[in-house]
Formats: sequence, structure tokens, C-alpha cells
Amino acid sequence: MSETSELIGKWVPSGEGVERRVRAEDPALMVVEFRFQTGGVGTLHSHPHVQSTYVERGVFDFTMDGKTTRISAGDCFVIPSNTEHGCTCIEAGLLVDCFTPRRDDFL
Amino acid sequence: MSETSELIGKWVPSGEGVERRVRAEDPALMVVEFRFQTGGVGTLHSHPHVQSTYVERGVFDFTMDGKTTRISAGDCFVIPSNTEHGCTCIEAGLLVDCFTPRRDDFL
Repeated sequence: MSETSELIGKWVPSGEGVERRVRAEDPALMVVEFRFQTGGVGTLHSHPHVQSTYVERGVFDFTMDGKTTRISAGDCFVIPSNTEHGCTCIEAGLLVDCFTPRRDDFL
Repeated sequence: MSETSELIGKWVPSGEGVERRVRAEDPALMVVEFRFQTGGVGTLHSHPHVQSTYVERGVFDFTMDGKTTRISAGDCFVIPSNTEHGCTCIEAGLLVDCFTPRRDDFL
């Protein structure tokens, strides 16, 4: 539970209708919450980090590698390294994402 | 969303009053749910994998490196490599754990 950045634990804007909050981190692993308003957009992007996404609440249309799937509470998946992904929020909610290694750009 | 094992997506016993279910995995990252009955025990143990724990629901007394903290829905932390940890479930619930690298012993 190191505190290497003042950003840990604070909500910050993360795109249209989206905020993120770093919850916990280690050089090898980071947990980040993404809070979406209905209609919020996670723009398509990719990164070398492997990511997991767990839907804590809400409904989303999630696109990975060109395929879009509707996901809701309890859904969970892994996004391989450098795989394009993004989402649109259908009903306001919260995604809990983990990244390995740590997203140093979030600190 | 590879399916390298028949165990992915299936609840299996994981100690006294505890079941686990692998939800998603990649060689670098694995997401596992742990469902606890009240009184269920996650025995103290350690592993080289770095772990994150997110409390989806329930109340737990969680011990890490000799210190015990009461945790509940929304709490989140990272357990460094080779750090002893375990918990006792106070109110039935669900922990969502991530591991890097993958816990191949769960497949």
C-alpha cells in the first residue's frame, strides 16, 4: 500500500463522462476504478500492459479487437497486450481494471 | 479469453467455507473470485505472485504481514510478492483477486 503519488485514491477526469481513481499499486500490478456516467466513452486505445476488467455495476458496450459485446455486473475478461479496446456506457456504472505492469502514466 | 483449462469459470473448493472461480486469464494476469461463507477462512499463505484484492461484497478480517484490518465492499489493496496473507469472513461475501503472473496452480 505504498503512496508514490498524490493521485492515488483521487478521482481524476478520464475522458467524456468518465473519471478514474487509482486504488492500489505495486510496480507489477495496479488497480484502477473507472466511473462512467450513462453515455460516457472510453475511447478506443491500446497499451503494452495486460489489463483485466471486472464490471462492478452498470452496463457497457465493450469493444475489443473490433468486436463489441454488451457487459454488465459480474462480467470479467482479460485484454491482451497491445489489443485495441474501448467502451460506451449504456447504464452508469463502475469498472475495476487491473494492469500489469503498473500504468506509470496514471501516477 | 483463452480457455486453457476446464477449470475456468467453475467454482471449486478453496478451503473451509471458501470456493474460488477463475474468471479470466493470460500468462501475465489472472482474475479469480473467492466466495466466502460467514466464518470461512483463507488460511495464511504466501506466493511469489503479486496479488490485488477488491472486496465486491461482505466483511472480512484480512491479515497481511502480521497486521489485521477489517475490510468491506469497495476496499482494495495490493499484496506484494511473498508477503504472508489470509482472512476470516465476518459477513458472507466475494473477493475479486488478480494475480501477476498467472496462478498456474489454479488451472
